[in-house]
Amino acid sequence: MAKRIDLNCDMGESFGAYTIGSDEKLLESVTSANIACGAHAGDPTVMDRTVRLAKEHHVGVGAHPGFPDIAGFGRRMIDFSPNEIYRMVVHQIGGLQAFCKVHSVQMQHVKPHGAMYNLAAKNRDVANAVARAVYDVDSKLMLYGLAGSELLVAGRELELTVASEVFADRTYQADGTLTPRGRADAVISDVDDAVQQVERMVNEGVVRTVNGETVDIKADTICVHGDSAHAVSFVEKLRVMLESAGIVVRSMVD
Amino acid sequence: MAKRIDLNCDMGESFGAYTIGSDEKLLESVTSANIACGAHAGDPTVMDRTVRLAKEHHVGVGAHPGFPDIAGFGRRMIDFSPNEIYRMVVHQIGGLQAFCKVHSVQMQHVKPHGAMYNLAAKNRDVANAVARAVYDVDSKLMLYGLAGSELLVAGRELELTVASEVFADRTYQADGTLTPRGRADAVISDVDDAVQQVERMVNEGVVRTVNGETVDIKADTICVHGDSAHAVSFVEKLRVMLESAGIVVRSMVD
Amino acid sequence: MAKRIDLNCDMGESFGAYTIGSDEKLLESVTSANIACGAHAGDPTVMDRTVRLAKEHHVGVGAHPGFPDIAGFGRRMIDFSPNEIYRMVVHQIGGLQAFCKVHSVQMQHVKPHGAMYNLAAKNRDVANAVARAVYDVDSKLMLYGLAGSELLVAGRELELTVASEVFADRTYQADGTLTPRGRADAVISDVDDAVQQVERMVNEGVVRTVNGETVDIKADTICVHGDSAHAVSFVEKLRVMLESAGIVVRSMVD
Amino acid sequence: MAKRIDLNCDMGESFGAYTIGSDEKLLESVTSANIACGAHAGDPTVMDRTVRLAKEHHVGVGAHPGFPDIAGFGRRMIDFSPNEIYRMVVHQIGGLQAFCKVHSVQMQHVKPHGAMYNLAAKNRDVANAVARAVYDVDSKLMLYGLAGSELLVAGRELELTVASEVFADRTYQADGTLTPRGRADAVISDVDDAVQQVERMVNEGVVRTVNGETVDIKADTICVHGDSAHAVSFVEKLRVMLESAGIVVRSMVD
Repeated sequence: MAKRIDLNCDMGESFGAYTIGSDEKLLESVTSANIACGAHAGDPTVMDRTVRLAKEHHVGVGAHPGFPDIAGFGRRMIDFSPNEIYRMVVHQIGGLQAFCKVHSVQMQHVKPHGAMYNLAAKNRDVANAVARAVYDVDSKLMLYGLAGSELLVAGRELELTVASEVFADRTYQADGTLTPRGRADAVISDVDDAVQQVERMVNEGVVRTVNGETVDIKADTICVHGDSAHAVSFVEKLRVMLESAGIVVRSMVD
Repeated sequence: MAKRIDLNCDMGESFGAYTIGSDEKLLESVTSANIACGAHAGDPTVMDRTVRLAKEHHVGVGAHPGFPDIAGFGRRMIDFSPNEIYRMVVHQIGGLQAFCKVHSVQMQHVKPHGAMYNLAAKNRDVANAVARAVYDVDSKLMLYGLAGSELLVAGRELELTVASEVFADRTYQADGTLTPRGRADAVISDVDDAVQQVERMVNEGVVRTVNGETVDIKADTICVHGDSAHAVSFVEKLRVMLESAGIVVRSMVD
Repeated sequence: MAKRIDLNCDMGESFGAYTIGSDEKLLESVTSANIACGAHAGDPTVMDRTVRLAKEHHVGVGAHPGFPDIAGFGRRMIDFSPNEIYRMVVHQIGGLQAFCKVHSVQMQHVKPHGAMYNLAAKNRDVANAVARAVYDVDSKLMLYGLAGSELLVAGRELELTVASEVFADRTYQADGTLTPRGRADAVISDVDDAVQQVERMVNEGVVRTVNGETVDIKADTICVHGDSAHAVSFVEKLRVMLESAGIVVRSMVD
Repeated sequence: MAKRIDLNCDMGESFGAYTIGSDEKLLESVTSANIACGAHAGDPTVMDRTVRLAKEHHVGVGAHPGFPDIAGFGRRMIDFSPNEIYRMVVHQIGGLQAFCKVHSVQMQHVKPHGAMYNLAAKNRDVANAVARAVYDVDSKLMLYGLAGSELLVAGRELELTVASEVFADRTYQADGTLTPRGRADAVISDVDDAVQQVERMVNEGVVRTVNGETVDIKADTICVHGDSAHAVSFVEKLRVMLESAGIVVRSMVD
């Protein structure tokens, strides 16, 4: 039976007069869109358009809640309590759900953004807050989180369907975590190498780490980045090569 | 058969460290709460608490969308297009709906705030945008608008259930509009006079204008204000006196 | 004696992770920079860098105050009172002055942005508020305003040095005002035509209107736009051609 | 020779329709005002009024820069780099300086707020950033910081005049730091005890810690809080009792 993988990408991150990303082009290659909810990026006009575009491209729509910090793009750590994070996730999912209703789209998933994503990967209280918010708003929503993260553990405990996220263009360490961006060997720039890494993740459930070992990893969805022209062609090639390798590229719910 | 009236009040307008209003006290007297959605006032923590408190007091929960302008409290006119207003209303209803979901509350109504309310009362395009947003998100939501306003016309055209809103403590002009706040005779400060005005509105469907005429008015719901200690006691007295006069004070859906 | 003209351009309009404009390229061609002050665009990091870059390119530094509205980029009309506008201009000039102090730059001018610019051109109370704010903070600052505008009248009345601003790529009407953007003949896209228009403005003090008449106009500074690749090359050509025509292109204070 | 002390208080923390504090009453008792600069609290209208009021009461005007976070009131830790903090302090001092210029007031001091204050007390890089920003904007400005903090060390190294700040209503630990708020013995609620603590600080340069020891402390200025009715009367009594004890209550520059 053919192995399958989802390609997800952050989208809808423009804001007012400010434009970021190549959403329309990327929607031709990815299978799931994480749509900013107006807190770290996006605004009602952008949310509306992005849900509509995702629908037109038959791409799965997800809420992409983040810290309420346009100036910092949701990447800065801010000292929110788990209760505050719970409420901001509830609020942001709701805001995007309304556009899904307007466009007759069923929301597929929720994936936290930036600092919230990183915090929920390691901090169990924050992981619980995010997972609980998703569950309380709609227990049928899927939860995307870093492979091996606390967020997936928290989601499974609530019996949410979770998607284990891996990276095509990042290297892994012996403990299965991503090599920090600062390090020289953190990024895989060659598309062939990236595809090979994904193939092994999907077909064998393992990844080769920077120190040459092989560790287990579950790959349900690949995070791709879309904020450069290079990124768009990377995603296009990645998809073509995965399909050539017999892997079905499809959103989580299709 | 006993006549009935709804008492609605703006709530949940605190923000971060800033507190406004006496929500808990008012919830003992009013029957519907218009809850700010984080655009002109409110934040996820305040929204969450206010929905919970309204539920505990068996008060109807409404979304109170406003212009995204915390600094101006949604009272300043900002030149938004009807399309932008449509999207901000969709977005804000959705954000509050998520808290209704979390608290197992059925949202009752939508009432626009401040500058959006005033604009939707007179400008048919804006009225259409607001009514359409309510309809598209949930056509069973009730729409509150100024008695005689374009907003009610727009709502009725979409076959939304509308509630015609009157003011207990404001005087009316010959054309049925409110006397502008700047004028000396704009406000009714005596509770007895206010109750008498409401009684006639409810029982006879008329209001006596500042120039002594009597004009038709439909009163489904009374807007009361809660931003002062005086206001709280005004609302308490108003409710007691209406009930003494045999009028049933009840939310729109009860 | 050679005629002279200043070329001014809006700059420093990036914000957090969002980038707008080609500031570094434009600084090679323009002679004055209108630097956003963090209200409609810009942030402290962008302000700091833009003042530094302008200094390095020997370009005159100006404050570019706008309505506090990042989401609307200061282009939306918001109903501020003249007093509120006075205070926001004071505040924004002060914020930029601090970066001028840090970089040992003498601030040259103030030019309001977007909706504030348009309002100050026609509304004398707003014009007075802006001019008075400039005067009160530093009466030696120059005030830039649309040729023939109320803002210049208000500035002259306070004995501020004013600069009459014209547009190279916009057509003029019989009454000396700009042809509204919506109209087909509003924009001059040919650089030669634009240069010819500027030459007559500078050398003869007149402009040929869309209906063929010639009206008086005072041209101290030309507003150029920098928000597209095309715009950058337009400015470069404009400068070269003006200099070829014997016009000295120089900032107001040089 | 009579000992002297300054009483400083945070002010100008209202925002738009939201009011906090009893600034006018407090200005009758304190000698220095730390005025919010529109980032964690305050807006141009509030800044303008507060500078004017402070001048009328002959109270020293200080800038009170904080993290740009109205929703969190500048109390939340946000992961800013020292360079970002440097620029936000430059920016915020500048904004307030413009109102000082308008009101012909000489700015006296700068005191960071909330999370920035706490961070600058312990983190030398942040302390350097704040002190350097003050120095670069105006090296004659005084820098207020917690007694014994890194901020005072950084300020002295730049040869800024620094003021060592103590608390009348907080207890101290053996190492001279404040007892954390969470602890039962953190706050001194009795005014007599508070005055006694301040007297010893001023007259003897020592404070009695919670475990009964006596440690050295330098007291140039006392931080008082003004966000409750109780606080206002506490400050009034504190001032009267200090003056009765022969201590001169006066701003740093008088």
